[in-house]
Amino acid sequence: MAPPRLRFPIIIVNFKAYMEALGKKALELAKIAEDVSFETGICIAVAPQAVDLRLISHEVRIPVLAQHIDSVPPDRYTGALTPEAVKDAGAIGTLLNHSERRLILADLDKAIKRARNIGLATVVCTDTPEVSLAVASLSPDAIAYEPPELIATGRAVSKERPEAITGVLKFISKMNPDLPVLCGAGISDAEDVKIALRLGTRGVLLASGIVKAKEPYKILKAMAEACL
Amino acid sequence: MAPPRLRFPIIIVNFKAYMEALGKKALELAKIAEDVSFETGICIAVAPQAVDLRLISHEVRIPVLAQHIDSVPPDRYTGALTPEAVKDAGAIGTLLNHSERRLILADLDKAIKRARNIGLATVVCTDTPEVSLAVASLSPDAIAYEPPELIATGRAVSKERPEAITGVLKFISKMNPDLPVLCGAGISDAEDVKIALRLGTRGVLLASGIVKAKEPYKILKAMAEACL
Amino acid sequence: MAPPRLRFPIIIVNFKAYMEALGKKALELAKIAEDVSFETGICIAVAPQAVDLRLISHEVRIPVLAQHIDSVPPDRYTGALTPEAVKDAGAIGTLLNHSERRLILADLDKAIKRARNIGLATVVCTDTPEVSLAVASLSPDAIAYEPPELIATGRAVSKERPEAITGVLKFISKMNPDLPVLCGAGISDAEDVKIALRLGTRGVLLASGIVKAKEPYKILKAMAEACL
Amino acid sequence: MAPPRLRFPIIIVNFKAYMEALGKKALELAKIAEDVSFETGICIAVAPQAVDLRLISHEVRIPVLAQHIDSVPPDRYTGALTPEAVKDAGAIGTLLNHSERRLILADLDKAIKRARNIGLATVVCTDTPEVSLAVASLSPDAIAYEPPELIATGRAVSKERPEAITGVLKFISKMNPDLPVLCGAGISDAEDVKIALRLGTRGVLLASGIVKAKEPYKILKAMAEACL
Repeated sequence: MAPPRLRFPIIIVNFKAYMEALGKKALELAKIAEDVSFETGICIAVAPQAVDLRLISHEVRIPVLAQHIDSVPPDRYTGALTPEAVKDAGAIGTLLNHSERRLILADLDKAIKRARNIGLATVVCTDTPEVSLAVASLSPDAIAYEPPELIATGRAVSKERPEAITGVLKFISKMNPDLPVLCGAGISDAEDVKIALRLGTRGVLLASGIVKAKEPYKILKAMAEACL
Repeated sequence: MAPPRLRFPIIIVNFKAYMEALGKKALELAKIAEDVSFETGICIAVAPQAVDLRLISHEVRIPVLAQHIDSVPPDRYTGALTPEAVKDAGAIGTLLNHSERRLILADLDKAIKRARNIGLATVVCTDTPEVSLAVASLSPDAIAYEPPELIATGRAVSKERPEAITGVLKFISKMNPDLPVLCGAGISDAEDVKIALRLGTRGVLLASGIVKAKEPYKILKAMAEACL
Repeated sequence: MAPPRLRFPIIIVNFKAYMEALGKKALELAKIAEDVSFETGICIAVAPQAVDLRLISHEVRIPVLAQHIDSVPPDRYTGALTPEAVKDAGAIGTLLNHSERRLILADLDKAIKRARNIGLATVVCTDTPEVSLAVASLSPDAIAYEPPELIATGRAVSKERPEAITGVLKFISKMNPDLPVLCGAGISDAEDVKIALRLGTRGVLLASGIVKAKEPYKILKAMAEACL
Repeated sequence: MAPPRLRFPIIIVNFKAYMEALGKKALELAKIAEDVSFETGICIAVAPQAVDLRLISHEVRIPVLAQHIDSVPPDRYTGALTPEAVKDAGAIGTLLNHSERRLILADLDKAIKRARNIGLATVVCTDTPEVSLAVASLSPDAIAYEPPELIATGRAVSKERPEAITGVLKFISKMNPDLPVLCGAGISDAEDVKIALRLGTRGVLLASGIVKAKEPYKILKAMAEACL
């Protein structure tokens, strides 16, 4: 059976290092995501903690992403998370350059190439229009634009600064019109998702809005339906 | 059943980011370590890659260590490996400050305290007598002294520079006579282990000597017997 | 003429990256420090920005410290600030491991040794009792203990948490009773200095309390007199 | 008098952390560069160590560059080298992202914007075609392309891998045809410079080829003449 792939529109749920999304709870959340994905047909990917990648990828049939990879080869690098390791654990791709795990430009270039070479998809986070354009030059599989001032605020960039989104989209379409841009930072309900897509993005990247939710199924379902 | 604990003398096998010690192969190697440990009664711990912690800790009854932990709390830290995550995955402790993953002093202090608070053992790598003494001030569970110029050379510090080992031991015993010091860097056969113990260390930390070996069982068995 | 040396009790003024202590203004502030030092006989050292080290050390006869040095040799290290460079520029020593510029433990060990080898004094910042003891193992010329939660608050550690100071002093005196410990974090007036000395420290490290002061001469004079 | 500006073709001499280019020797080397620049009319810029910026910029009338700047504001950042500080010290611009001082992408974006805002020119080092294109997105004043495998080898990229140079030029000209690209890595004689210009670059960035030379005047003169 072919491994699940990123399809657009997409909702990516980043589990961060939250206790609410670790181990058993991570698996429960991933199954909820799978349920919603199967019910709606919308692609929902999960990005659990490194220790949970294998557990989750064996149990669900939606795309599982690492939260980060190091660009080093699988060799003498104690403590590194190589592309080979996350692939072996069942991940089909990885987030990169999250605001909580920024990368040196040269390493980001290497990490994207390393991932591509072994068949891992890359979703690269960016914080400004210029950085978004720069990342587009590195040919990742998607960009997640997250103005850092809105991350984890509950105030969605799509509502608060729609012009930031459209500006980035215009910027990137000149260089690479086919590169999907996702909307991150502050996405917390279906309305935010709807606006994000209407602005031209191909999906959203979110974390606490789902991980910390009392009823993640309900919110995720509404978000997925907003993508239809 | 109580989780396995670090006992001394000890042999710790660091799987680094090697392909030869990833996934299935990591599990095979861990089972070999378990066999040798049960046959000889000598404590053998393994430090697999983060993605393999859960897999291995569920299958073997020897101590499983992470290769590194971040000192941050289990919160908004994409890409972090928290103490809580490695514990949830079944690790009973962690290596810290390996030469390939050096830590900022303040973070090392935090990481050791965080680990201790949730019941994880810490084995901290050091590169000089002064750094070893400094780390002893932070009260880890063990120190692994590895002169960096000998790491992965196949030339054992215990043979090449025995006076370095005894110097460090004398240094540390003044501050904390009960703190176990292990010998790292270049350990590749039973003879190296025997000398390391004779010099006063309480065990060894090694990687390629086992991971890259054609007959890891044979070498590990001989090393464990050298500890008897 | 012999270069000025660190004498205790001491007041060290860290210019940080403040505009109020850059270039001409840095020189003015250094001259005020020199005036107060000559008038009171108390050692006052200044730690200007790297670009100002030469300017200031040529114009004042009080100890000039760098704010940081890299541990690398004077070789192919673009952007590095070597011990040799700050010495050539007239600094007689350096701060190290400031909370705004933490160092990897192994690099801190190297930096202290490199500094000592070429005759530079080292004043190493620490944030906890354990880290202070660890740094004492590395034999710097002085330690500046700064609980991070009080830095730049205007609330002095000597007043807010005197037991933190005495705890660190007791801790360190076991290892190295002659190692001077300075009090940092929140020192803003002569009273803070007086208490810090009474607790057993050998001086203070401060920044905004002088750099941002309307009348730095007046405050510094009162602080120096509090040391008599 | 207006400060000297970057003009193309240009030869930039990076003094790195070399002892041969520190303090008095740095000044001598800068004066040689000035002599050659005045004699030939070719723009020659020097990038001395931070402690020497003020000394040199006061004594020569050629462009003086910092080797690095931090993107932080002029505030509580002990040990930082702000754009404001290097400008105050007389630098008219800065190198950024040198292979020995790589930057996080988001910081590189910030550093370029910060520099531009206060009127500092930026010359950003890159290591691959993709990174070069990415940097072009950030609109620096020039790019210095340096394949890392050739740095400090004495083997010039212009000779060894001319197709690498032309590939990068073609790549960048699509995005920003006016952005000057310099050739770095292994430039050691006039012939290397000539080839670099013939390939379409607008100058060279070099270090040991001049700093370690017995007769820097002679080599630099020949290089400048190769630009005519």
